[in-house]
Amino acid sequence: MRTSEPFIDSTIDALNRVRQTSPLVQCITNSVVVNFTANALLAIGAAPAMVDIVGEAGPFATVASGLLINLGTPTPEQRVAIIEAQAGAAAGATPWVLDPVAIGSLPVRTPLAHRLRELRPSVVRGNASEIIALSGTGVGGRGVDALDSVETALPAARSLAESTGGIVAVSGAVDLLTDGIRVVRIATGDPMLTRITGGGCALGAVMAAFLAADDDHLAATVAAVTVYTIAAELAAAQSAGPGTFGVAFLDALAAIDDEHIAARARIS
Amino acid sequence: MRTSEPFIDSTIDALNRVRQTSPLVQCITNSVVVNFTANALLAIGAAPAMVDIVGEAGPFATVASGLLINLGTPTPEQRVAIIEAQAGAAAGATPWVLDPVAIGSLPVRTPLAHRLRELRPSVVRGNASEIIALSGTGVGGRGVDALDSVETALPAARSLAESTGGIVAVSGAVDLLTDGIRVVRIATGDPMLTRITGGGCALGAVMAAFLAADDDHLAATVAAVTVYTIAAELAAAQSAGPGTFGVAFLDALAAIDDEHIAARARIS
Amino acid sequence: MRTSEPFIDSTIDALNRVRQTSPLVQCITNSVVVNFTANALLAIGAAPAMVDIVGEAGPFATVASGLLINLGTPTPEQRVAIIEAQAGAAAGATPWVLDPVAIGSLPVRTPLAHRLRELRPSVVRGNASEIIALSGTGVGGRGVDALDSVETALPAARSLAESTGGIVAVSGAVDLLTDGIRVVRIATGDPMLTRITGGGCALGAVMAAFLAADDDHLAATVAAVTVYTIAAELAAAQSAGPGTFGVAFLDALAAIDDEHIAARARIS
Repeated sequence: MRTSEPFIDSTIDALNRVRQTSPLVQCITNSVVVNFTANALLAIGAAPAMVDIVGEAGPFATVASGLLINLGTPTPEQRVAIIEAQAGAAAGATPWVLDPVAIGSLPVRTPLAHRLRELRPSVVRGNASEIIALSGTGVGGRGVDALDSVETALPAARSLAESTGGIVAVSGAVDLLTDGIRVVRIATGDPMLTRITGGGCALGAVMAAFLAADDDHLAATVAAVTVYTIAAELAAAQSAGPGTFGVAFLDALAAIDDEHIAARARIS
Repeated sequence: MRTSEPFIDSTIDALNRVRQTSPLVQCITNSVVVNFTANALLAIGAAPAMVDIVGEAGPFATVASGLLINLGTPTPEQRVAIIEAQAGAAAGATPWVLDPVAIGSLPVRTPLAHRLRELRPSVVRGNASEIIALSGTGVGGRGVDALDSVETALPAARSLAESTGGIVAVSGAVDLLTDGIRVVRIATGDPMLTRITGGGCALGAVMAAFLAADDDHLAATVAAVTVYTIAAELAAAQSAGPGTFGVAFLDALAAIDDEHIAARARIS
Repeated sequence: MRTSEPFIDSTIDALNRVRQTSPLVQCITNSVVVNFTANALLAIGAAPAMVDIVGEAGPFATVASGLLINLGTPTPEQRVAIIEAQAGAAAGATPWVLDPVAIGSLPVRTPLAHRLRELRPSVVRGNASEIIALSGTGVGGRGVDALDSVETALPAARSLAESTGGIVAVSGAVDLLTDGIRVVRIATGDPMLTRITGGGCALGAVMAAFLAADDDHLAATVAAVTVYTIAAELAAAQSAGPGTFGVAFLDALAAIDDEHIAARARIS
């Protein structure tokens, strides 16, 4: 019986609040997915602002509703802007998401991710290999691929959440979220999300939007993942391949409603 | 009666000239919309050239048919390239469009926009808040959102046009264009244009293409807005959401013809 | 009779090997097409990695399966990363593709392309004007447009292949490929590829994926062009314009199979 599942009501509430309040989400993200990320935020009802230059990233983060720091293509300019934005977020009590893309052996982003981890992100989102690498218990994947399974990353995710005091979300066939104590698994989704670039990165931005809509950050993150992965299911049902899936996914983010969530959510 | 409306013939002529001559449009624009902008230019029949690095932006601007300077993500490299390109455009008599994205309180782009304003852009395109901020009569919006209405911006637009000697175009539900004396309103369009990123930014590039096709810059700008917003109507009619709208919009830019313009234009 | 054509079997084998081995393709490419390029690689079954910053580009290139260096928007950061990546590719025996976008008169990228040419790229891919400019026998086009015809570029392509010891591929209505001795023409394709941005650039990345799947670099390049241009035919058959074409093209790259290749290949 679906209604017995936890987090269903809070997910529906959070989605509606995002749409009513249109949170302003600042993204410092990689050049590959920046367009898709902005469109995903617009589709879900949030307001994207890709303010990622030095001198503007900090002041903007103090007034933004949420902030995403994604390390996919960390140029020198972005690396300075990231530190500035994090400080602004801290000053403005702006919740922020860290996506440590492809860390492990890459020598620029890996130490930067560890430095940011010490600054206690509200949410860390990554695949199993990235979470393991950030927790200090493994070496990471190759590029954006996860070589480790989600369940293998549970101890690392828990340990990382304890050290940041925030939420850690591990993406995979079944997503795993933890605040260090509670562990939530979300089974909705579709493998097509891994066949388009930005399938994971845009989720980090959507999480930042939902953090602005629910002070309970675990519930907010569960809501973001649930809405996002159900939209993927809706899109996959009417796609002929990765091209049409990416387009249908934006439509689905705009169309998803309470009934879709109540009928499809698989949260445990 | 449609045929009594002004600018219909000049709009049809300008579109056909763009398609026949394929103007080379240099864009210095933000990373979020650069792909969509290039595809919009190709769809309408122009030739995009995203030449935005120092050392190349200037010489290219002297030979380009039109130039767009968009301040959406003004990196240090782009800021130098912008000044260089503007000088090249001036040397080559290349018409240029300034899009002062999100200016107001952001401390890097706002002074840069004011500096560029002094250099007399052929067209300034923005939402109401951006135009008010650039005219010096207000403080701008939050990110790319306009907090002010289009009609509220009329005095600012008129004053700005007087000071630049060019055209000022304010985007909104009804677009407002002025050369400082004449005021033109264009009522075509669809709200879906605000649900995808680049809906406004790509219009600036299309304006640059049309400036190359009509020496009467007010008529050229009216033509660009009319073609663009009618394409949005055509696309919205066959879209299920923002994803399919973005795709259908590119198809519509390529398909729009004289009959669409004659039947749908709402210029006053 | 199709089966008498050369390269059909090797093309089918190479495509299947790409899908089975999912080669890790590092791309240092321009901001306009970076999203489309990553999605094209994912669609064909490869793993994209847009590692283009100084300090990471070199080490990554030593372990990547293939490398693309595309000069479309060569920022200062990318120019240093390119040299670093090429050295890494040389150290790791990683095959690499050079796409000398819009070289000729542009003063930053043109000398860089000539320097890279001396480093003996596995494949050079460009339009006729770019190949002629790189061979030193002409001046190039305007932006990304080719002013010269493919057949006109044959002597330049042959000469360039002799000097690099690699393959040279000239894109056009009929693609021309040569190792300096053999000349292969591929007649599949659709003009819609020229109506979207990245139609040529993403092909360079797909070539890098195929180089990892076949040590015979001429056969690998023929396979990449054949698969890519047949996918364009499949996509054009169900497109209403450039927007739907771009989407259908990604679907087609994911769907293309042995039968499509055997039935449609036009290699001579």
